[in-house]
Amino acid sequence: MQNTVVRVARLPQSGPLEASVFDYVDEPLTKLDPGSFLIESFYMAVDAGSRAMLDKCSDYVLKLWPGDKVPTTGIVGRIVESRHPDWRQGDFVRLMPGYRQKYIKIDPEKDFVHKIDQQVAPISAYVGLLGLTGFTAWLGVTMADPKVGETVLVSAAAGAVGTAACQFARAQGARVVGVAGGREKCVILKDELGLDECIDYKSGNIAFDINHYCPEGVDVYFENVGGEVQRAAFAAMNDFGRIVMCGQVSQYDGTGAPAGPNLMTVVLKRLIIRGFLAFDHYERFPEFTEAATRLYAQGKLRHKASVVGGFGNLHEAINSLMRGGNIGQQVHQVNSDSTVWQ
Amino acid sequence: MQNTVVRVARLPQSGPLEASVFDYVDEPLTKLDPGSFLIESFYMAVDAGSRAMLDKCSDYVLKLWPGDKVPTTGIVGRIVESRHPDWRQGDFVRLMPGYRQKYIKIDPEKDFVHKIDQQVAPISAYVGLLGLTGFTAWLGVTMADPKVGETVLVSAAAGAVGTAACQFARAQGARVVGVAGGREKCVILKDELGLDECIDYKSGNIAFDINHYCPEGVDVYFENVGGEVQRAAFAAMNDFGRIVMCGQVSQYDGTGAPAGPNLMTVVLKRLIIRGFLAFDHYERFPEFTEAATRLYAQGKLRHKASVVGGFGNLHEAINSLMRGGNIGQQVHQVNSDSTVWQ
Repeated sequence: MQNTVVRVARLPQSGPLEASVFDYVDEPLTKLDPGSFLIESFYMAVDAGSRAMLDKCSDYVLKLWPGDKVPTTGIVGRIVESRHPDWRQGDFVRLMPGYRQKYIKIDPEKDFVHKIDQQVAPISAYVGLLGLTGFTAWLGVTMADPKVGETVLVSAAAGAVGTAACQFARAQGARVVGVAGGREKCVILKDELGLDECIDYKSGNIAFDINHYCPEGVDVYFENVGGEVQRAAFAAMNDFGRIVMCGQVSQYDGTGAPAGPNLMTVVLKRLIIRGFLAFDHYERFPEFTEAATRLYAQGKLRHKASVVGGFGNLHEAINSLMRGGNIGQQVHQVNSDSTVWQ
Repeated sequence: MQNTVVRVARLPQSGPLEASVFDYVDEPLTKLDPGSFLIESFYMAVDAGSRAMLDKCSDYVLKLWPGDKVPTTGIVGRIVESRHPDWRQGDFVRLMPGYRQKYIKIDPEKDFVHKIDQQVAPISAYVGLLGLTGFTAWLGVTMADPKVGETVLVSAAAGAVGTAACQFARAQGARVVGVAGGREKCVILKDELGLDECIDYKSGNIAFDINHYCPEGVDVYFENVGGEVQRAAFAAMNDFGRIVMCGQVSQYDGTGAPAGPNLMTVVLKRLIIRGFLAFDHYERFPEFTEAATRLYAQGKLRHKASVVGGFGNLHEAINSLMRGGNIGQQVHQVNSDSTVWQ
C-alpha cells in the first residue's frame, strides 16, 4: 500500500509560498503493529505557525529544512484499519499534532489522539474550535480571566484563535471588541459570533478606533498579531490590565520582526503580560474539552472555518491564511470524501 | 516660625537640571493641631521619579507644574515639637511620601509615618534600603520568586532599587548578575554587596556579556532601565522566565521613549512580564520591614547611599543620580546636623 507524505522541497523566500516549496512524496506504507491503527486523513489544520516554521530567519519554536516531513497541529481522519480492540474501523479520530500525509499510523499509547463525535459538531471543528486553536484561545482567556463587564480586546479576531477567544470571553460575560482586516469580516464577527464591536484595522486609525470602541479602556488584551495594532492596544490598556500573547501573525512571513512598544506603559499601568504556548498545558485539555463542548451545545460557541481543498494545495491554504482570506479556522481538506462528513 | 518649602519655579528642558528649576520659598509655619507633631527634616530620598515628574512630555504617574510643591518618596527627620503622647520630641521618624520642606507637620492618623531606630541601621537607610526603594526591590524579587541556583539579572544594579534587589535575590539563594555603568561600580557591587558577576554596560557588548556571564540563561530579569540593556536581556531569557519591571531610568530625562523589544520572545519563551509600583502594595510594608530588618541584622543586606548635602542642592542631587554618580540610594541631606546621626 502506498502513502503520500508532504515534505519540504526548498525553503521559501519571504512572502507567499509557491507550489514548489512542498514535495508530495509517494512512500510505501508498512504493516500495522499490534495495538495500533491506520487513519485516512480528511482535514488538517493550517495555522500561522505553518508559515513561520518555513521561515529560515525566524526563531519560531519549530523550524523545517528541505527533506523534513511537514507537521500540522491537528488532523481529523477516519480509521481504515485497526489492530486495537477499542479503536474500530469507520470511527472518526483527531490526532494532535501529526505529519501531513494521506494515511497515518497511530499508536494510541503514544500519540495524542481522541475519538470524535460528528453528532456533537462538524468533524472539521475538531481541528479548530474544539482542537488546538480553540484550546489556545480558552487557555488565554482563562489566564486573563476577564470579569463580567470588563472590556476584552482581541486582535486577529477573525482568525482561528481570535474567533474562539472572542466567544470564550463573551461566554464569561465580558464586553468583547475585535480587531480584524476588512469591513466584511467585522460584520460577520458581530452578526454571527456576537462581538460587541469590531474594528477594521484596514480603514481608519487603529489607535483612535480602539479608544472610540473601548471608551472605558481595555482590561484584557488577547494579542495575536504584533506591530501597529499591538502598540495601539498597549496604549489603551487600563491600570492592572492583563495581556495574553500566543503569537504575532504579522511577522510570520519572513519580512522580519519590528520593534515592540516601549514598555514603560507596563510599569505605569502595572500590566501583566503572559506569553504561552498550548502544548505546555496539555494536562488541561480535558477541562477545555468539557467546557468547549458544553458551551457549543448551549449555542454559545459557533464553529467558523475556511476550507481549501486538494492535497496538493497546501501552499495555497497557507497563503490564503497569511493574506487574511479566512474567517475562523483555516482548514486543508485533503480527501474529497470529507465534505460528506463535514 | 518660618518654614522653607521647595516649589517648582519652572519646568526644565531635557538633560541636567539648573538650580533655577526650584524655588526655596520661606513660608510661615502655623501652630500644631492636637494629635499631630512637627519634624525637622534630615534626609530625603532622591529617585529617578524625582526627575521624571518634571518632564512635561512624560506620562509618569506624577507630573509637576510651576508653583507645585515637590514631593519625595521618603523623609527622615527628628521630632522637634509634639502634641501627641506617643510621638516624643527627639524621636526619629520616617515619612513616606512627603513634600520637600525644612519642617513638616505630621498627623499620624493620616500620614504613612513610622518611628525608626538608629540602633538598627543608620537613619539614612530608612529612606533607602529600609524605605520605599528597598520595599520596591523586595516586592519585585518576591513576585519573581527566584529559586536557589536560578540566575537573576538586575539592570541599574548600582541604583537604590538595584542594589537592594541584588541583595534580596542573593538572600533567596539565586545567582545574581548585575548590569551597572562603569568598572568601579562593578567592583564595589561584587566586593561589598556579594554579586556573583557584574557587567559594565559602558564597555564591551551588552548582549555578548549577558550571554557570557549568564551561561545558563536568565531566569529572572529585574528591569529598571529600558533601552539596549532591556533588549539584550529579553534575548537572553530562559523559557518560562519572569521579568519584573518598576521603571525605565534611561528614559526619565526628557530625551524620549525608544521602541521596546519585539515581543515574539514573550510568546516563544512563555515569559511573564509584570509591571508594578510599590504604592499599590502598602499592605505588605510590615512584611517587608520584618524581612528586611531581619536580613540586615544577619548581615545579608548592606546599606549603600550617596549623599548630596545642602538644601539648595536638590537639582544637583537629581543630576548626580541621572548621570549615575550614585551607588545605592541617592540621598539629599537637608540638615547639616544629620551627619551626626547618620
